[in-house]
Amino acid sequence: MARAWTLASRPAGLPNDSNFAMVETPDAPLADGEFRVTNSWLSVDPYMRGRMNDAKSYADPFQLGEPMTGGAVGTVTDSRNADFPVGAKVLHMGGWRDSVVLGGGTTSPAGMPPVRLPELGVPDQHWLSVIGMPGGTAWFGLLKVAEAKAGEVVFVSAAAGAVGSTVTQIAKAKGMKVIGSAGGADKCAWVKELGADAVIDYKAGKVLPQLMAALNDLGETGIDVYFDNVGGEHFDAALATSREWARFAICGMIDVYNDFKAQPMQYLPMIIGKRVTIKGFLYPDFYAQVPEFNADMAQLITSGAVTGRETVKEGLEKTPEAFLGLFSGENTGKMLVKL
Amino acid sequence: MARAWTLASRPAGLPNDSNFAMVETPDAPLADGEFRVTNSWLSVDPYMRGRMNDAKSYADPFQLGEPMTGGAVGTVTDSRNADFPVGAKVLHMGGWRDSVVLGGGTTSPAGMPPVRLPELGVPDQHWLSVIGMPGGTAWFGLLKVAEAKAGEVVFVSAAAGAVGSTVTQIAKAKGMKVIGSAGGADKCAWVKELGADAVIDYKAGKVLPQLMAALNDLGETGIDVYFDNVGGEHFDAALATSREWARFAICGMIDVYNDFKAQPMQYLPMIIGKRVTIKGFLYPDFYAQVPEFNADMAQLITSGAVTGRETVKEGLEKTPEAFLGLFSGENTGKMLVKL
Repeated sequence: MARAWTLASRPAGLPNDSNFAMVETPDAPLADGEFRVTNSWLSVDPYMRGRMNDAKSYADPFQLGEPMTGGAVGTVTDSRNADFPVGAKVLHMGGWRDSVVLGGGTTSPAGMPPVRLPELGVPDQHWLSVIGMPGGTAWFGLLKVAEAKAGEVVFVSAAAGAVGSTVTQIAKAKGMKVIGSAGGADKCAWVKELGADAVIDYKAGKVLPQLMAALNDLGETGIDVYFDNVGGEHFDAALATSREWARFAICGMIDVYNDFKAQPMQYLPMIIGKRVTIKGFLYPDFYAQVPEFNADMAQLITSGAVTGRETVKEGLEKTPEAFLGLFSGENTGKMLVKL
Repeated sequence: MARAWTLASRPAGLPNDSNFAMVETPDAPLADGEFRVTNSWLSVDPYMRGRMNDAKSYADPFQLGEPMTGGAVGTVTDSRNADFPVGAKVLHMGGWRDSVVLGGGTTSPAGMPPVRLPELGVPDQHWLSVIGMPGGTAWFGLLKVAEAKAGEVVFVSAAAGAVGSTVTQIAKAKGMKVIGSAGGADKCAWVKELGADAVIDYKAGKVLPQLMAALNDLGETGIDVYFDNVGGEHFDAALATSREWARFAICGMIDVYNDFKAQPMQYLPMIIGKRVTIKGFLYPDFYAQVPEFNADMAQLITSGAVTGRETVKEGLEKTPEAFLGLFSGENTGKMLVKL
């Protein structure tokens, strides 16, 4: 039997347990070209919230009653496909379930074909974190979208999250000054451990005065790059402290995913005087450059410049709980489910 | 005697008459290299509001008790400079006064040296409007910042203003579809006359539903380019209706110049899903490309594709009134003072 989490109902605002239902289906025999992957690691990510709505946001919506999809790593346990033999490790989008049939005439979950894990000497679960989608989001956003350069000042929100913690480490490895924002003393301490030059605790006070104080302490007049994971107050504070020609890479606005509520923005006119460039981006826009990212990131990992940290929940049953934890800030680093 | 408007006091919020004072100074004899320009046209522009504050916004602040500066066109009436002989027509920044001494050891007002008007067959006052700074702002913003292309849908706010009316005409001349926003039936009718495919009256209702209705009428699914002159509600509506890879050229946010009040923004997360690029810019960033702009614009004017329209106040006394009129929407096209 294969077990999978399906979308039981669409949430209004913050999702809860009632939006998910587990279904069991018997294992069907494989057709030619198909192979069965038994999952060992599942990813839960903030972008999935958008797919729970009945409207295209970043990606097509999840269908009611159908298994949800998401990044997963597993091992081929049955195969009628020579490219994916038994024992091969596979990165694919058939997450939210314990096993999945891929290849042949099946439709790839989320429209993304499975790939075999390259042999780059990194632990399996890192393919869902630092060297996977969140890590790539960090790498492409910082280096390709914002074009951050050595010596520049980078401000990153949700710096203890999967993407933000990787941004912090890449930026330090590439010679930038980093100010990270995180919620609570523990997370802030960890961001500091990652190498951030200054850390702001957004739960301890307003972002803007803390950001200005951090810049002052570092002897800097403003920020050159903002890597946005949260939107709202952080985004406004970044505008307020922009230097001329600052670049913003906008990757997530978790503050506003659950309710498209109006955010009070005071410093948008800074865009003009400082000639700020603000760019939204999505990881899939950079598929063609993933090998370049993988090669650089494997080196950063094996040299110790970047360390992957994961918050792990054990067991398929915990998948909704892991996902919901993203919105209450439960994770330090990447949130994963281990099967 | 030379008469000049000085900054008498710094405004809090909307400026008024008491912020300006006229002073008279005797005409000094010219030193070597100097020349006297008797002004015939003065420009008043929204960006001057920022310079009335005691803080660098786009440009250095005006100094209390000193003559204000701004674009002006005049004729050399006295000269000890062979490059600017008596009778030469000059575009310079010594506005807000009836005559000014330039060249030699004088400091160029606003740090921008005077230039002789090129012979391109356009009326003098157009050098302060369609073929001057506002026209250049339109041309560079639309074509170089937003990189608008034939067939794309361009939304422009303040489409009856100096910059917006030129954006509308350039966009039509270059094969784009244009939706303009203006305040009141008269201005809307004029924007339609300029060639806009659809016009929104922002005084008659909310921007977003009107913009969606206009797109629907034109059979379009969204906008590709937004040329922002006002910020606030227009900016939010442009985000809400962005197509993928939309580009925003942010040139002015007149809604928020007078008070840096928080604006409620609901659609910022669209930046991510639609991969919107938002860029602030200032005309001076493009000085090196002004000859290219002048050549193209002279052709657009002489071919009849772009017509300059000016709202003219007569007499130096009316300069503050003309300036204040910008914030109550008194002008259709460029606001000028004729001496």
